[in-house]
Amino acid sequence: MIIKAYGAHAGNLPLEPLDITRRAPGAHDVRIDIAYCGVCHSDLHQVRAEWAGTIYPCVPGHEIVGRVSAVGAQVSRHRVGDLVGVGCIVESCQHCAECDDGLENYCNHMVGTYNAPTPDAPGHTLGGYSQQIVVHERYVLRVRHPEAQLAAVAPLLCAGITTYSPLRHWKVGPGHKIGVVGIGGLGHMGIKIAHAMGAHVVAFTTSESKRAAAKALGAHEVVVSRNADEMAAHAQSLDFILNTVAAPHDLDAFFALLKRDGTMTLVGAPASPHPAPAVFNLIMKRRSLAGSMIGGIPETQEMLDFCAEHDIVADIEMIRADQINTAYDRMLKGDVKYRFVIDCASLAA
Amino acid sequence: MIIKAYGAHAGNLPLEPLDITRRAPGAHDVRIDIAYCGVCHSDLHQVRAEWAGTIYPCVPGHEIVGRVSAVGAQVSRHRVGDLVGVGCIVESCQHCAECDDGLENYCNHMVGTYNAPTPDAPGHTLGGYSQQIVVHERYVLRVRHPEAQLAAVAPLLCAGITTYSPLRHWKVGPGHKIGVVGIGGLGHMGIKIAHAMGAHVVAFTTSESKRAAAKALGAHEVVVSRNADEMAAHAQSLDFILNTVAAPHDLDAFFALLKRDGTMTLVGAPASPHPAPAVFNLIMKRRSLAGSMIGGIPETQEMLDFCAEHDIVADIEMIRADQINTAYDRMLKGDVKYRFVIDCASLAA
Repeated sequence: MIIKAYGAHAGNLPLEPLDITRRAPGAHDVRIDIAYCGVCHSDLHQVRAEWAGTIYPCVPGHEIVGRVSAVGAQVSRHRVGDLVGVGCIVESCQHCAECDDGLENYCNHMVGTYNAPTPDAPGHTLGGYSQQIVVHERYVLRVRHPEAQLAAVAPLLCAGITTYSPLRHWKVGPGHKIGVVGIGGLGHMGIKIAHAMGAHVVAFTTSESKRAAAKALGAHEVVVSRNADEMAAHAQSLDFILNTVAAPHDLDAFFALLKRDGTMTLVGAPASPHPAPAVFNLIMKRRSLAGSMIGGIPETQEMLDFCAEHDIVADIEMIRADQINTAYDRMLKGDVKYRFVIDCASLAA
Repeated sequence: MIIKAYGAHAGNLPLEPLDITRRAPGAHDVRIDIAYCGVCHSDLHQVRAEWAGTIYPCVPGHEIVGRVSAVGAQVSRHRVGDLVGVGCIVESCQHCAECDDGLENYCNHMVGTYNAPTPDAPGHTLGGYSQQIVVHERYVLRVRHPEAQLAAVAPLLCAGITTYSPLRHWKVGPGHKIGVVGIGGLGHMGIKIAHAMGAHVVAFTTSESKRAAAKALGAHEVVVSRNADEMAAHAQSLDFILNTVAAPHDLDAFFALLKRDGTMTLVGAPASPHPAPAVFNLIMKRRSLAGSMIGGIPETQEMLDFCAEHDIVADIEMIRADQINTAYDRMLKGDVKYRFVIDCASLAA
């Protein structure tokens, strides 16, 4: 089936309308009519060839929500008409320790929603800036939010799970004081989710101008990290730090805020490494520096259910597909609160 | 009381005989006639002013074993004649969360066995290269090894606990495959202890010549880390890595060997940082880089008891106090298997 999409033919070219092909649904496949697709910073990095290995044509998009329009004969988890989502993962080996543990995100053979090898034409996966997608039922999530919130649910499929997973894994909850570094697409979700988990949330930003916004998102305290006195007031007081900043920055200033046995988990992947952290900061209080990448499929369902229960969605700005190049330019300037979402109905125009 | 010791008056001067004063035992104090004192690499760094803040005269030594020769009126834990040890800690605040948890090593007011402020003359602590030491009973450990092993027990007080504590904290045991990086004073203890804990131990060394020695210490496998093929054979297979190397080195090569959720814990503090680790390696498998510093007092007792039960001591070379400068030179060349221990009886000569 040929459908409309938006993508690029090279890293130095703008995104433009494309016709792409989706496979006919197999026995375990679900076909989704895409209603909305969130715009992740990864999309921009990949399509502009800022990360290695971009395959063209490239159709980004891994924050996909829509309605099931067809299912294969063996599909048991989803029905035509269901509101569903697809995140960063559309396939994995299904038999390694990671897959067995429901952590398909750490499977060595995880297939990303775009730019990953696939038997389907054209030989690599094409993402959610498109009218439809066909995905094995295992990687399709049920959306329990009201349909009116559907567009704002889309970013949960990447920004939501990327922040939820480490907060859960490191057992953030009531009685904990935790930090969220960076108040962007990921950080704004981290603040909302950590707040809902019952933690005392301290948001860290470099911008004085984001102070009020961070409080509105649910931060109990906001620290402007350029202000040494404000930082010092939180020395050795945090149980956990979720660091969402992908730009290289000084990690040591944040380690100093962790208690003994505290962990700072990075969810942003900078193009060049952060300055080397001082070993002393780790050793002196048995602190850890960790990383976390999106989350597994069962955990993504858990996150969606948690967010539905707590009435959590992303703060979004809706765009038409033909506004994507402008939206990328605005993202680079930090001019978005906090996530662009493409109205995929605009692809038909 | 004036006693004999060995120390230095400046960073560029050799160690020489000194007369120092010890306080009379207070109500909670234990006076120990020192039999042996291990020689830690930290001793060399501190006395030669390679680390900041050395106060002179400097008497190093924090791997102390001997016999109790006097106790204060309130002492309940130790008696005259007991075989005991003192490690890196001689005082702490005794009322913070760390002290309450028996992790005095992470107390912000921990007083090191040498080079730390104290009300005693000359105003800073003087270590175990001496005939006697007076220490609050809380920081004095019971030695259950046979007296014939006493000299080889000394290094357990720093090298032993520094490796035991992270192995215990990260729950190393049967069914685990773990790495020990570096086969020196710390690493040789790490191999012995991890083996006794029931783990499958892979030792990593840069020296082909250490292969047999590492096996003799208890390593099940030995990898020469300069050999990429040998390293690749262990990719994504280790649950935990104890990294004892203090010299700056490439951490990424070792991260690649950790399974999902694996941790590499650093116990060596390099003078300059390691090259910045690639964030990608952390994120892709939810790996952690951690630090650990010696261990708490209850844990040090547990380690001594564990080592006595498993017949574990350090491999040592005994020296007289007047051989210490030569011993330092040999340590710098890696020419020691694996720990020098000073026979403190030689101080009387």
